[in-house]
Amino acid sequence: MTESPYVLEPIGWVESPLVDRGAAPKQGDEGSPDAWLVFEPAVRAGLRDLEVGTEVLVLTWLDRADRDVLVVHPRDDPAAPERGVFSTRSADRPNPIGLHRVEILAIEGARVQVRNLEALDGTPIVDVKPVLNRVLDR
Amino acid sequence: MTESPYVLEPIGWVESPLVDRGAAPKQGDEGSPDAWLVFEPAVRAGLRDLEVGTEVLVLTWLDRADRDVLVVHPRDDPAAPERGVFSTRSADRPNPIGLHRVEILAIEGARVQVRNLEALDGTPIVDVKPVLNRVLDR
Repeated sequence: MTESPYVLEPIGWVESPLVDRGAAPKQGDEGSPDAWLVFEPAVRAGLRDLEVGTEVLVLTWLDRADRDVLVVHPRDDPAAPERGVFSTRSADRPNPIGLHRVEILAIEGARVQVRNLEALDGTPIVDVKPVLNRVLDR
Repeated sequence: MTESPYVLEPIGWVESPLVDRGAAPKQGDEGSPDAWLVFEPAVRAGLRDLEVGTEVLVLTWLDRADRDVLVVHPRDDPAAPERGVFSTRSADRPNPIGLHRVEILAIEGARVQVRNLEALDGTPIVDVKPVLNRVLDR
């Protein structure tokens, strides 16, 4: 669709007991395990104000997604009516950026433990942001 | 930080009166103009369930950001204490993905008008997702 590349550099990686996409929960609060975000030493300075007990948005690159998909049956349910991917949270989409709202449980140097992350083990992390609450995140 | 590229393909582009980063509001609800999301024809099937009057998350690639920045003065205020970029919404960060919560005002084919978008004219769009509300977005 374009000739110019827009290249993400992973800033870290997910360490999780989840290794199989088929067995993974569809959303973080549906029985996902706690997981560790293991950041690259090069970005550690950017982590300094993260706080245990707060919620953050973690952006990942869902590297096992199918990028050619534009319409899906939500929640992989063949009986569910098809929907355009931009109205779903499906991992299969042109740019498979995962968006996960998680609570920080622990911080150990460049390792951050979070609650209820549905991303698979080894998933690249590309960003961390404050939650989108329009008042509180300023 | 890695040898494997993770390449985003823009799915569209922002059309906005905002052309100068210095003059842009810091957040969408601080006086941002309405804007058009102009999607590539190739992804149009993915748009089919977007609805006027609903809110969505728009992900952009902030192509004028400084990717080497890890610590910033929030809101470009030199008097504000420095913070790690992962605790801020600064555009300057290793992977400058913009996350914008906007209301859909109109849909005309592959053009979608939204309220209060702080992204600059010409900004690449990389994804659209339902809002993160844990109940309503399923």
